[in-house]
Amino acid sequence: MRATIPRTSGLKDYSREMVAARQSFILEKTGVRPEHMAAYSFELDLLPGNIEHFSGVAQVPIGLAGPLRVNGEHAQGDFYIPLATTEGTLVASYNRGMKILYESGGITTTVSQDAMQRAPVFIFDNAREAREFGSWVANHFETIKAQAESTTQVGRLQNIEQYPASKMMYLRFNYTTGDAAGQNMVGKATFTACEWIKKNYPAVRRYALSGNMDTDKKTSFVNTLRTRGKRVTAEAVIPKHLMENIARTPLDILIKQRQISTLGSFMAGANNNGSHSANGITAMFIATGQDVANVAESSAALVYTEMTPAGDYYFSITLPSLIVATYGGGTGLPTQKECLEILGCYGKGKVNKLAEIIAATVLCGEISLGSAVLAGDWVTSHDRYGRNRP
Amino acid sequence: MRATIPRTSGLKDYSREMVAARQSFILEKTGVRPEHMAAYSFELDLLPGNIEHFSGVAQVPIGLAGPLRVNGEHAQGDFYIPLATTEGTLVASYNRGMKILYESGGITTTVSQDAMQRAPVFIFDNAREAREFGSWVANHFETIKAQAESTTQVGRLQNIEQYPASKMMYLRFNYTTGDAAGQNMVGKATFTACEWIKKNYPAVRRYALSGNMDTDKKTSFVNTLRTRGKRVTAEAVIPKHLMENIARTPLDILIKQRQISTLGSFMAGANNNGSHSANGITAMFIATGQDVANVAESSAALVYTEMTPAGDYYFSITLPSLIVATYGGGTGLPTQKECLEILGCYGKGKVNKLAEIIAATVLCGEISLGSAVLAGDWVTSHDRYGRNRP
Amino acid sequence: MRATIPRTSGLKDYSREMVAARQSFILEKTGVRPEHMAAYSFELDLLPGNIEHFSGVAQVPIGLAGPLRVNGEHAQGDFYIPLATTEGTLVASYNRGMKILYESGGITTTVSQDAMQRAPVFIFDNAREAREFGSWVANHFETIKAQAESTTQVGRLQNIEQYPASKMMYLRFNYTTGDAAGQNMVGKATFTACEWIKKNYPAVRRYALSGNMDTDKKTSFVNTLRTRGKRVTAEAVIPKHLMENIARTPLDILIKQRQISTLGSFMAGANNNGSHSANGITAMFIATGQDVANVAESSAALVYTEMTPAGDYYFSITLPSLIVATYGGGTGLPTQKECLEILGCYGKGKVNKLAEIIAATVLCGEISLGSAVLAGDWVTSHDRYGRNRP
Amino acid sequence: MRATIPRTSGLKDYSREMVAARQSFILEKTGVRPEHMAAYSFELDLLPGNIEHFSGVAQVPIGLAGPLRVNGEHAQGDFYIPLATTEGTLVASYNRGMKILYESGGITTTVSQDAMQRAPVFIFDNAREAREFGSWVANHFETIKAQAESTTQVGRLQNIEQYPASKMMYLRFNYTTGDAAGQNMVGKATFTACEWIKKNYPAVRRYALSGNMDTDKKTSFVNTLRTRGKRVTAEAVIPKHLMENIARTPLDILIKQRQISTLGSFMAGANNNGSHSANGITAMFIATGQDVANVAESSAALVYTEMTPAGDYYFSITLPSLIVATYGGGTGLPTQKECLEILGCYGKGKVNKLAEIIAATVLCGEISLGSAVLAGDWVTSHDRYGRNRP
Repeated sequence: MRATIPRTSGLKDYSREMVAARQSFILEKTGVRPEHMAAYSFELDLLPGNIEHFSGVAQVPIGLAGPLRVNGEHAQGDFYIPLATTEGTLVASYNRGMKILYESGGITTTVSQDAMQRAPVFIFDNAREAREFGSWVANHFETIKAQAESTTQVGRLQNIEQYPASKMMYLRFNYTTGDAAGQNMVGKATFTACEWIKKNYPAVRRYALSGNMDTDKKTSFVNTLRTRGKRVTAEAVIPKHLMENIARTPLDILIKQRQISTLGSFMAGANNNGSHSANGITAMFIATGQDVANVAESSAALVYTEMTPAGDYYFSITLPSLIVATYGGGTGLPTQKECLEILGCYGKGKVNKLAEIIAATVLCGEISLGSAVLAGDWVTSHDRYGRNRP
Repeated sequence: MRATIPRTSGLKDYSREMVAARQSFILEKTGVRPEHMAAYSFELDLLPGNIEHFSGVAQVPIGLAGPLRVNGEHAQGDFYIPLATTEGTLVASYNRGMKILYESGGITTTVSQDAMQRAPVFIFDNAREAREFGSWVANHFETIKAQAESTTQVGRLQNIEQYPASKMMYLRFNYTTGDAAGQNMVGKATFTACEWIKKNYPAVRRYALSGNMDTDKKTSFVNTLRTRGKRVTAEAVIPKHLMENIARTPLDILIKQRQISTLGSFMAGANNNGSHSANGITAMFIATGQDVANVAESSAALVYTEMTPAGDYYFSITLPSLIVATYGGGTGLPTQKECLEILGCYGKGKVNKLAEIIAATVLCGEISLGSAVLAGDWVTSHDRYGRNRP
Repeated sequence: MRATIPRTSGLKDYSREMVAARQSFILEKTGVRPEHMAAYSFELDLLPGNIEHFSGVAQVPIGLAGPLRVNGEHAQGDFYIPLATTEGTLVASYNRGMKILYESGGITTTVSQDAMQRAPVFIFDNAREAREFGSWVANHFETIKAQAESTTQVGRLQNIEQYPASKMMYLRFNYTTGDAAGQNMVGKATFTACEWIKKNYPAVRRYALSGNMDTDKKTSFVNTLRTRGKRVTAEAVIPKHLMENIARTPLDILIKQRQISTLGSFMAGANNNGSHSANGITAMFIATGQDVANVAESSAALVYTEMTPAGDYYFSITLPSLIVATYGGGTGLPTQKECLEILGCYGKGKVNKLAEIIAATVLCGEISLGSAVLAGDWVTSHDRYGRNRP
Repeated sequence: MRATIPRTSGLKDYSREMVAARQSFILEKTGVRPEHMAAYSFELDLLPGNIEHFSGVAQVPIGLAGPLRVNGEHAQGDFYIPLATTEGTLVASYNRGMKILYESGGITTTVSQDAMQRAPVFIFDNAREAREFGSWVANHFETIKAQAESTTQVGRLQNIEQYPASKMMYLRFNYTTGDAAGQNMVGKATFTACEWIKKNYPAVRRYALSGNMDTDKKTSFVNTLRTRGKRVTAEAVIPKHLMENIARTPLDILIKQRQISTLGSFMAGANNNGSHSANGITAMFIATGQDVANVAESSAALVYTEMTPAGDYYFSITLPSLIVATYGGGTGLPTQKECLEILGCYGKGKVNKLAEIIAATVLCGEISLGSAVLAGDWVTSHDRYGRNRP
């Protein structure tokens, strides 16, 4: 007999009683009493829309790093960064990077593109019909846009890319989505547009709301090229003496090593020629209530460094598919909201600010790890802070 | 003046007093009183090795899904899966998939490869010296192995791959690491091996502990090809009538749609031809104290489906670079440990079991979303459970 | 002393005397008397613009295959295909495929996109200036277009894609180029546009005419996604009994095998999930005077197959970056022109026709090899026709 | 009625009479009289094994470039390079590069790996059986090797890589193949091994001789990583003053530009971060009777440059999948053999020499074009030598 997770039988689905019922169920089925999971600090009526079968919380330690000095367009000044992680050394390493960058005058950040996708695929009898459909879509863009936007007060359809292959037309609907990450918003908008298309273009044999060119929760070259979420660059100039002291390596060797790493990434077919952007992104995503699964695509990065004419170290990292929100999703939950507020990023009109802060944080982690690798203290610092034990 | 995060000045670094000092600091600097962050339920002496500048916790809601029936080699029976997420619909969707798979007889899981890497790069004067070095490394494998393993009781160096390019020799040291994820373990082991190499092979100009072919915290073709962490496959056969009822679509159309999605993924240059493996992986990673940043590489997936001779639906997903641990890292923290215990996966000898359960969970999510997309209720279910508000 | 190839010292550069001088030089330097190279059949005044230091010809055997029945928009009817190759079995294999497809009613072909690129990169002081430049480029598109088109009577600038990264703005200028392949044409046009930009946008620090996102003579995801040259699809339906007879394999197994091959290609990170499109493309490129080095990008392919509702075999292949010309380059040389004339493709207004014929030929090769692999006679046919000897 | 190409009806298949019959057929069907195609200079009994339905030759102009000074292990001294192409500027550009490199002391070349593949896929009932099969293959390597090598006097099976996915086991059989390119050789050897496996391992449901992980006639990350054909590096140091004179650009800018190009290639998902290796490779492949379709994979390249401690320009290019032969295939045809002889590369024991010469040639082309792009005379030189007509 299939023993299902307790649900609503008389109890309100989001109630302490229901949580208790589920915890009893866990105890009965597994012998485990989930005490710490039950130690949440908030009212449950916040939860609908964020979780089903709520049974407690994961408590993920938060370490603060900072001050992070950001010279952005949306983020300006010094920030203290909540990093939720269980990996020793991570906070210390980012903090070290922030110190270096603070002393260097801070990090300049720029959001250059903004696009959230849903990418349906339309199937036809043959390639020629798929191509004709493409022309029709281009000619009816305004109507399709109106259909899509009828479902949302925020989302704006910017354009529709066309990728024909075989008898299919893969489309990529690109939207701006305000302060929400927007995956659901654009899903709904695109669904409405597609249903309208299907009714008005009879040659469509069938369609699917995703043909996997979005590429949602997946990294891809199309995302790196065409942007998913925010495309944001963090850059800084670190004085030569400062960099060399920290890395215990001459600057020209540091720069060569970056090129060698880039060649390794290129040969490996990696989505990132940097060191570990996923670390900072993930820790901030957990802390601030982002959709953490988007680390899949948000972890892509393009690093470029050079020596300035003055002999200092120019370092930049571009995140081509950083998916962030300051509204919707998990952003309103209690600890998550506190973390956003610590950053001054809660609510409307803040999403680019958050993107800039994350990119600046990522840059600090790159500088810190990059220099540790070369200074030979990468391993020893993990010995000090981390769990280099077995 | 740079206002740094409070540290140890008289107070023990991991103490309630220190946390309070940091929270006062936050309040002072940002005007935010982090109350919920402070509502952790455990003793702080657990934390060293997991976090620095500890200032509280992120409370991430956990929903239970299940029962998940797994017919693995290491995981056998029914499991209840803790999923830590803030994304509405996710738990419901995975739970729906688990129900379908339960009725189909469960999911078969197989761990086929196991390898954790550190990939140093050695730089020479020219390509010929790099090649000669490669021969020397092959001939001295046993000694290098002994050096590497001298630093660990668990890690075992399996082989060293060679990727020469230009005047560099990129190496990939492949280890098994027991129940730990092992990144730090293999970092330390490889560092020791490299230092020995540098001393014993004078032609080495310099080396870096990573040449970015690991590729740590980054997805890549080399990881998908050569495995990073566990390579694990989940597969199942779903009876035709069951699948068609749920997807409201004929099975042959479902299979065609998978091919069309795969072509989209191929054209997009994605690391995954499935739907959203990152969702289940991330939610389990947060719940069970994994290094969540490894979602970057763990989210890669290879999906293959076909109609069986009996007309049923064979569905499989291979995760080529799933990085998991049941020991070390965040696995020993309170809520994380509880979640591992709920799965019967805490501690030694359990890592393959955990890998199998994650893979089985991922498969359920693929079936659920895949059918929702085609049934047209993807969007409507987000309306019901999620936050499809403008 | 550096002994250079003889040039112009009194002799006309393209003259039989000069060729003789070079052949004497070869004899003197290498002891080889290049008799067959000297056996060209045409007047040398055709050559300027095609070759420097002309010293003879490579005689590449041409085999004819056909009739190839094409149901295109530009190519309609039966064609005999000149294939220049030295690989035994190739012509026989394509011919076999053409026979199958002829009996199936021919191949339908569709050119769906057309774009030739030059992709300069502009370097700025920082990312924000790169972004502002992007806005300026978008706002000055018409002027830039006029500048670019001032250099050509044929080329038309369609749009300029923007790919910002770091402090660089990578642009991709997309042109149509009439019946020429157009690389030189778009190089000159883009150069003129860039020089104008540099003069009119002082924040440009410097630029390079290629930032390697063209990606000329290189395959890439950006080309597969965004098209380079022609994007052309060939498709056909092959009756079940015919296919099964030839492949000696049930149709459902053939289709499964295609999926398995596609998964292999996806895992391998290949630019092509088909079998050997490069064979047919290369042989036709050599025969018809194309720029054969473009096989690098032209060999990318997207294959999709399925069983039709009637139980027959739908097979399609999309070439996303097929670079062809019927004018300019090597198309006017004697044997090359003859081959183009055999196809009815010499001169103006014929380039899409040629693209369609090539795509149809490629499809025949896929069917032929695909069935040979499964029928187990791949190797045996190489034994019969080819050089399976040592 | 299907009018087929004339074959053997009384006439010998490779005879002047048969060629005449085919040419009459062409004339009749297309109205084209292929005079120049018919102007071949050799006896037809050379052709069996190289072409079917022989109907004439393509005459591809050959230009000589050189001297190319190579400091290889197999190629040493000065060489004159036959380049078969119809693209104006190509020979002049390579020649210019050879001059620069000659003055720089020549190019050092190194072949570091050698592997030709056939990659069958074995299909099982489930992933566990696929994995067990993998163990069995590893344990029976010597027997499988003996089976494979029973078909060839030259080919040697070096190892078998395993890439499990779903219920399939993709294998990659890696061979050395002497002076042949070896695709047919390894096809036959692997076929024999596979047939033996199928008989001796009953759990195999079926297999296909290629699962598309070879990846033959296709570029791929697996080829770049694991080598296909020869992995060969060319490198050189060009004195600063020489380089700056030619490129009319300071050396540090040249090096930065290479990094910017590499970033562009990385973002584009290209198989090559150089400029145009395909040009030199293709021209030499046509001239020397290589399988030109292998330009698809041979065009992959990894470029790395840096400033030496003395301030000069270190430039290297690694071709990870260069497929070459000095025996078999088209190497014995008349003009092709002459070209190989000019290089001193005809026949046995010469294949690494040819690989080195090609790599050195490619490097010269990179230097030449790279400097032309920056000097701004790329376009103007095409105007001079090429066909920059509208």
